[in-house]
Amino acid sequence: MKILFIGDIVGEPGRRAVKELLPRLRRQHELDVIIANGENSAGGSGITPKTAEEIFAAGVHIITSGDHLWDQKEVIGLLQNESRFIRPLNYPQGTPGQGSYIFQPPSQAPVAILNLQGRTFMPPLENPFTYARAEVEKLRQKAKIIFVDFHAEATSEKIALARMLDGQVSAVVGTHTHVQTADEQVFPGGTAYLTDAGFTGPHDSVIGRDIDAVVKRFLTLQPQRFTVAENGVKLQGAVVDIEETTGRARSIIRISESIPNRPVEQQS
Amino acid sequence: MKILFIGDIVGEPGRRAVKELLPRLRRQHELDVIIANGENSAGGSGITPKTAEEIFAAGVHIITSGDHLWDQKEVIGLLQNESRFIRPLNYPQGTPGQGSYIFQPPSQAPVAILNLQGRTFMPPLENPFTYARAEVEKLRQKAKIIFVDFHAEATSEKIALARMLDGQVSAVVGTHTHVQTADEQVFPGGTAYLTDAGFTGPHDSVIGRDIDAVVKRFLTLQPQRFTVAENGVKLQGAVVDIEETTGRARSIIRISESIPNRPVEQQS
Amino acid sequence: MKILFIGDIVGEPGRRAVKELLPRLRRQHELDVIIANGENSAGGSGITPKTAEEIFAAGVHIITSGDHLWDQKEVIGLLQNESRFIRPLNYPQGTPGQGSYIFQPPSQAPVAILNLQGRTFMPPLENPFTYARAEVEKLRQKAKIIFVDFHAEATSEKIALARMLDGQVSAVVGTHTHVQTADEQVFPGGTAYLTDAGFTGPHDSVIGRDIDAVVKRFLTLQPQRFTVAENGVKLQGAVVDIEETTGRARSIIRISESIPNRPVEQQS
Amino acid sequence: MKILFIGDIVGEPGRRAVKELLPRLRRQHELDVIIANGENSAGGSGITPKTAEEIFAAGVHIITSGDHLWDQKEVIGLLQNESRFIRPLNYPQGTPGQGSYIFQPPSQAPVAILNLQGRTFMPPLENPFTYARAEVEKLRQKAKIIFVDFHAEATSEKIALARMLDGQVSAVVGTHTHVQTADEQVFPGGTAYLTDAGFTGPHDSVIGRDIDAVVKRFLTLQPQRFTVAENGVKLQGAVVDIEETTGRARSIIRISESIPNRPVEQQS
Ligand SMILES: [Fe+2]
Ligand SMILES: [Fe+2]
Ligand SMILES: [Fe+2]
Ligand SMILES: [Fe+2]
Ligand SMILES: [Fe+2]
Ligand SMILES: [Fe+2]
Ligand SMILES: [Fe+2]
Ligand SMILES: [Fe+2]
Repeated sequence: MKILFIGDIVGEPGRRAVKELLPRLRRQHELDVIIANGENSAGGSGITPKTAEEIFAAGVHIITSGDHLWDQKEVIGLLQNESRFIRPLNYPQGTPGQGSYIFQPPSQAPVAILNLQGRTFMPPLENPFTYARAEVEKLRQKAKIIFVDFHAEATSEKIALARMLDGQVSAVVGTHTHVQTADEQVFPGGTAYLTDAGFTGPHDSVIGRDIDAVVKRFLTLQPQRFTVAENGVKLQGAVVDIEETTGRARSIIRISESIPNRPVEQQS
Repeated sequence: MKILFIGDIVGEPGRRAVKELLPRLRRQHELDVIIANGENSAGGSGITPKTAEEIFAAGVHIITSGDHLWDQKEVIGLLQNESRFIRPLNYPQGTPGQGSYIFQPPSQAPVAILNLQGRTFMPPLENPFTYARAEVEKLRQKAKIIFVDFHAEATSEKIALARMLDGQVSAVVGTHTHVQTADEQVFPGGTAYLTDAGFTGPHDSVIGRDIDAVVKRFLTLQPQRFTVAENGVKLQGAVVDIEETTGRARSIIRISESIPNRPVEQQS
Repeated sequence: MKILFIGDIVGEPGRRAVKELLPRLRRQHELDVIIANGENSAGGSGITPKTAEEIFAAGVHIITSGDHLWDQKEVIGLLQNESRFIRPLNYPQGTPGQGSYIFQPPSQAPVAILNLQGRTFMPPLENPFTYARAEVEKLRQKAKIIFVDFHAEATSEKIALARMLDGQVSAVVGTHTHVQTADEQVFPGGTAYLTDAGFTGPHDSVIGRDIDAVVKRFLTLQPQRFTVAENGVKLQGAVVDIEETTGRARSIIRISESIPNRPVEQQS
Repeated sequence: MKILFIGDIVGEPGRRAVKELLPRLRRQHELDVIIANGENSAGGSGITPKTAEEIFAAGVHIITSGDHLWDQKEVIGLLQNESRFIRPLNYPQGTPGQGSYIFQPPSQAPVAILNLQGRTFMPPLENPFTYARAEVEKLRQKAKIIFVDFHAEATSEKIALARMLDGQVSAVVGTHTHVQTADEQVFPGGTAYLTDAGFTGPHDSVIGRDIDAVVKRFLTLQPQRFTVAENGVKLQGAVVDIEETTGRARSIIRISESIPNRPVEQQS
């Protein structure tokens, strides 16, 4: 089974990249399941039912999220009504929405998707390590294939969680830093790993935002308006190939595909 | 001119990788200048005159550092007496040591090396953006080729600084996260860029340390002793090719080379 | 000379407390100079020309600020045109506004007011310790009496800065935590000190905000709307008595005065 | 019933203050129960069986702790064998030691003591708000009188937790900042509150440490050795008077008592 994971979709350019590139990627890699992190899909901050719908319509099966979860109020509709949209599991009991989902592809083994969020250099949530261990044990009753999106900042936290789960899940792919790392590998226990999938959106930017505003922020230490950039749009992520009978990963490769810049007159 | 930058050298395994691999890399890439980040070269924490000497003896011309600068007391000897060892520039006036160095390769253009440290998710230092701008202006009086090691955690801070310096320096390569990123590129102004060079040391680890201790730390939230790991030793970094007359980068490629594990009976 | 310093004025209730209580406090303590931190005076977040005008009209001579400086866009008008409004000094060169002001009371010695912001557990600014030392040296050419509002989170940073300035300034009073501390004292060198002045606004609250929303935030880890509370309104601060000829503090006392709750039907 | 809570005991000077002052305080305030935070009792960092024994011998019934819990390895002996020593409750399941203790004074109602640690500007632990709610419910089955030491940095987190528990516990007293606050009060539900108890040790210092080293740290941004200071030794804390039949607090007063400096020739 081949799963494509798409890194944080940023704004309209990110959604456009998914729409334009997914059909070809699906054929080329013979993809069975497509997962995407959508935490920045609405104007760069958060997600709405409308942007989620656009992403599902483009062919994505499951959407994960992260620390920008609550940026758009309308997310509550997704959390309550859309089980294909998941949030980090490690929120306190009683939080709307779910942290995992079991996707049933037609005539293939079920795939559990699990979303977690880190705590190092991030707002406090419950312990992703203890939550992960308990949830993976539960999910393994229902699915041999488990795919984890660990939304976290620190490399040590990401690698440690993945190493802890080695042999228990099919893949751990990190998100949040918006920069793709070059450490894709299959751990000895059969878990595919990549510290960060990168992001899907405009790369002539600072992690998706206009360069000048971010530079000005660091120079002046004054707040700036960070608008979503426009050019150098890429879809980034990873394709993991998994043995269906065991859930072990065979391989993981990085994906980074461009779409052409819009002609200047079209740009807003 | 071809410059090899080597990511954070971690402990004895990291120093060994430099010694074993540098001769071949030098020939293979026709290297002119070799720079290495040495902040973790002494037992994983800090640097001493002895470990620095070992690194210089292996063929490295300039050693940079970062937030682990003060971990070993003997570093003061390096700061005071060894101009080929530089620390992050953005310490207050009066701090021992230097933040930049101009290296004169035999019969080639001089190369300025500049070390800076980020402030996002890191201890407060002075502003790396304002310090960088002022220092680069000074260095450009003396060298067309300027190589920057920006030791920082956050991807946004690293990319923003590099974008700000695009066209003013030959290369900005990041260090500190110990995970190599896959975003090597030459910016439009001619500055080569890589968010993180990765690290040089044992990769069957969590960023160089024993896996079990780090996992236990995250599970229990109790301090653990983090010993330097042993296996999967790699030298990581980047080779930047620079036009000598203009200082513009022609290309940047990532480097990640392994050395064999030690036979089991030799391991301590 | 007697100086009243008023801790962070929060929203309309805070401004009301200043208006209602200042006339009596001025007579009772024979106040010569009145300084107030206004960073939360506009709806709890930031300051505008209108709220500043209200505070000046109530009898305050100088307004200081802090990390909420930029919350209201209109603050730029104050920074550019109102020298009696100061911001933390330790912003980079070129930042609008001033970090200090010399107030000339009629027929008394001039009083320099200096505003600084901490960096521990706060966004990075330039070094408040080196900035303080340099600015105090300059101000001492013009005024024997120097009053410092150090807007900072960590007790260690506040005490250390004040101890460093002992004998160089008349008083260091902290702001930002919104909880008045009980450590008022005159240091051996003659500098009056109080770690935090407290805040001026509704104390039946969590540091000025509605209790339920803040508790819910900590329980659920979801963002909440934090409205300014209404009851238990107090003016908090300190009165420092200073020898005019030397600038040494004679004494410092804490101030915490209540105004009655509004009748229920008036509350919005 | 009258309970004395003693703020963080720092080093030998702190232990000495407890020994010298407790007998008089016990008589003067007719104290029934004495609780002390001991997280800095061993040389300023952590606690050992020996320093705990000294504190118990001086008349303290229960010792609480905080983020310096693990600084001394010997603490494991206390966690395993000494039920009168408690650690923050909100560690993961399986952590050695206990987060609460029920103390039975002779011929009086039992007193439950609960220790929690904050997460704002502190290392991640489990959620103190959800842990507190669950534990208080359990403790109320066994004791009407519940005393909470909430070891936390941020004023908002401390006040919010106390407000949440108002009416459920007899008192919430904060520790960790080492500066006593002036906001002692009994909340409407009957819970006594003080944001910070202050610390017990040398106050001619920066929160217990030598002034010069801490100032130098902030000026140079280099690590310094922070030795425990010597002079201005005080015992700080609060006395809470509680109705035994209901567990409601009648009053809370702050305590800050000095012992004389040692003659100079005795000082090390
Ligand atoms: Fe994120
Ligand atoms: Fe993101
Ligand atoms: Fe580092
Ligand atoms: Fe490092
Ligand atoms: Fe503030
Ligand atoms: Fe404030
Ligand atoms: Fe503490
Ligand atoms: Fe403490």
